[in-house]
Amino acid sequence: MFIKIGLIGKGNVGSCFLELLKIKKNYLNKKLNLKYKVIAIYEYDGALINEKGIDIDEILLLRNNFRSHKDWKENVKAIDSISNLNLDVCIDTTPTNPNTGEPALSHIFKALNNNINVISSSKGPFYLKYKEIHDLAKLKNLLVKYEATVASNVPILSIKDSLKGNEIISIKAILNGTSNYILSRMSSEGVAFSVALKEAQELGYAEADPTLDIEGYDAAGKLVILANELFCWSKTIKEVKIKGISKITQHAIELAKSEGLIIKHLAIAEKGTLIVEPRLIEKDSPLNIEGTLNVIELQTTYSGPIIIMGRGAGGYEAGSAILNDLISIHRIINNIK
Amino acid sequence: MFIKIGLIGKGNVGSCFLELLKIKKNYLNKKLNLKYKVIAIYEYDGALINEKGIDIDEILLLRNNFRSHKDWKENVKAIDSISNLNLDVCIDTTPTNPNTGEPALSHIFKALNNNINVISSSKGPFYLKYKEIHDLAKLKNLLVKYEATVASNVPILSIKDSLKGNEIISIKAILNGTSNYILSRMSSEGVAFSVALKEAQELGYAEADPTLDIEGYDAAGKLVILANELFCWSKTIKEVKIKGISKITQHAIELAKSEGLIIKHLAIAEKGTLIVEPRLIEKDSPLNIEGTLNVIELQTTYSGPIIIMGRGAGGYEAGSAILNDLISIHRIINNIK
Repeated sequence: MFIKIGLIGKGNVGSCFLELLKIKKNYLNKKLNLKYKVIAIYEYDGALINEKGIDIDEILLLRNNFRSHKDWKENVKAIDSISNLNLDVCIDTTPTNPNTGEPALSHIFKALNNNINVISSSKGPFYLKYKEIHDLAKLKNLLVKYEATVASNVPILSIKDSLKGNEIISIKAILNGTSNYILSRMSSEGVAFSVALKEAQELGYAEADPTLDIEGYDAAGKLVILANELFCWSKTIKEVKIKGISKITQHAIELAKSEGLIIKHLAIAEKGTLIVEPRLIEKDSPLNIEGTLNVIELQTTYSGPIIIMGRGAGGYEAGSAILNDLISIHRIINNIK
Repeated sequence: MFIKIGLIGKGNVGSCFLELLKIKKNYLNKKLNLKYKVIAIYEYDGALINEKGIDIDEILLLRNNFRSHKDWKENVKAIDSISNLNLDVCIDTTPTNPNTGEPALSHIFKALNNNINVISSSKGPFYLKYKEIHDLAKLKNLLVKYEATVASNVPILSIKDSLKGNEIISIKAILNGTSNYILSRMSSEGVAFSVALKEAQELGYAEADPTLDIEGYDAAGKLVILANELFCWSKTIKEVKIKGISKITQHAIELAKSEGLIIKHLAIAEKGTLIVEPRLIEKDSPLNIEGTLNVIELQTTYSGPIIIMGRGAGGYEAGSAILNDLISIHRIINNIK
């Protein structure tokens, strides 16, 4: 049986995912008995659709010229079309409006309402409507996976299943690479906030409008998803107390340093509360990571701290997280032990 | 349906596991629908046996006087008895002879041959007879879990399932807390190897005979299990090139320091080879951890390095890893999604 996939969004993440599907095709078929057909690939202005399965090799060779492929249908929209294709899994990788979660949010509800399992790398829907999405999935007996939304391929959501014999008390994390890069540079090179920000923008780490990163909204969204998942909460981003790093001065950093401390932009979940703010940590804390990495420290009742770190962003990183979600769904729906 | 458990070994790990079963009983019953009965608890000189289920509260209250309990049967041996009790899961927590893997090895084969799933915190069987154990389990359609054998509750074996969409290229790890503690002290305090070793022994980190730790055999055993699991190998400890740390001098440590480097006792698996030896690493490497922690760095094709760290030993740590293995087995045998 083939898993029939609809992919929404053929940007960096969507394209890397397709490439991974191609590279790992043999492994998926032979080792995991996972056979797939990509039935539709949606963009904002149309879609590639082929009910017998799109030729991914051809599409990847065409790169940004994929609209010239014979399967391209102008003006077909995902929201109208996904319900007509008998899909098993719908994968959303669209860029999200951070305040509304759209268009991903509508795609997810549409898919679930039409009995299609969901994978998403868009976090908006999950920090805005976590409960509603999960309630609907449960009602419909469907799966929703979104490992890529927090720390990309670092498996911090699926680690939950491996810690059920323990008990997580608190989460402390660095979930935004841009703000961590800026603080790292301010600390190691002694440069001002504005200089470090400009550097981050030139290196492509920060957006032209870096507000979501430096003011903590991006980290807060990820924190909501992480805490909801690990603590079985149903909170939204409105419940996070958020403070950014734009007011951190060189003076404050030097003062901390003189006490052997470091200022980091931490995302914290404990005792029912969610906080993103600059905090002082010990210089030799495992949370003292440099550059654009992400790190998560889980304090546990029976094993003390468990720490996991890795890259928090990138096309292949998110693509491989999505592929792993697909493998999980395959194992569950096809009852593979 | 109750899961019927036989526990072999009521030392520190076995007792902590029983305590966790008690503490988390409500959670297991209500949230995970996992109902259990502990039918037998074996020690070297007899066993507690009750086919209706041993009263764990009573046993825990008796502490080391458990042999006074009404269910105690003198001279009953696990190897003769486990096949007679209709067990679903046999949990081995016995101390292992590092060269033979006994008595755990025989317990595991006996259990599998009698259609009983296995959980083990004894690593000997898995670095000596990994293939044979897995072949038998497969033949019998049974489950064998042993998360506690490597880095205790740090879920480095089960992380495999979360990285199938990626590809692990190499493993670099610190898997022995004692030798890491000694090197840390030599480096931070400038003390000689013999002094740091004595300190570790006084603090209870090192055994009276510390050979297995400082000569690398303990780390090598864990490395075999980790690499077999993550790379689908079937190697044994004979295939590990092992060098200890007892010849590391203060001079060597100072020399490394002057270049900004640190000497660590690394366990490395890459390109088909297994090595445990002292290696130089950068001062700001994530592998530069202090004290008795364990750390594992997985180099991956699609997400760069993924690092996970935490406590590598301890009764509750191992107990919660075992409990998690039990939860996994429950989910699989009872087909819970």
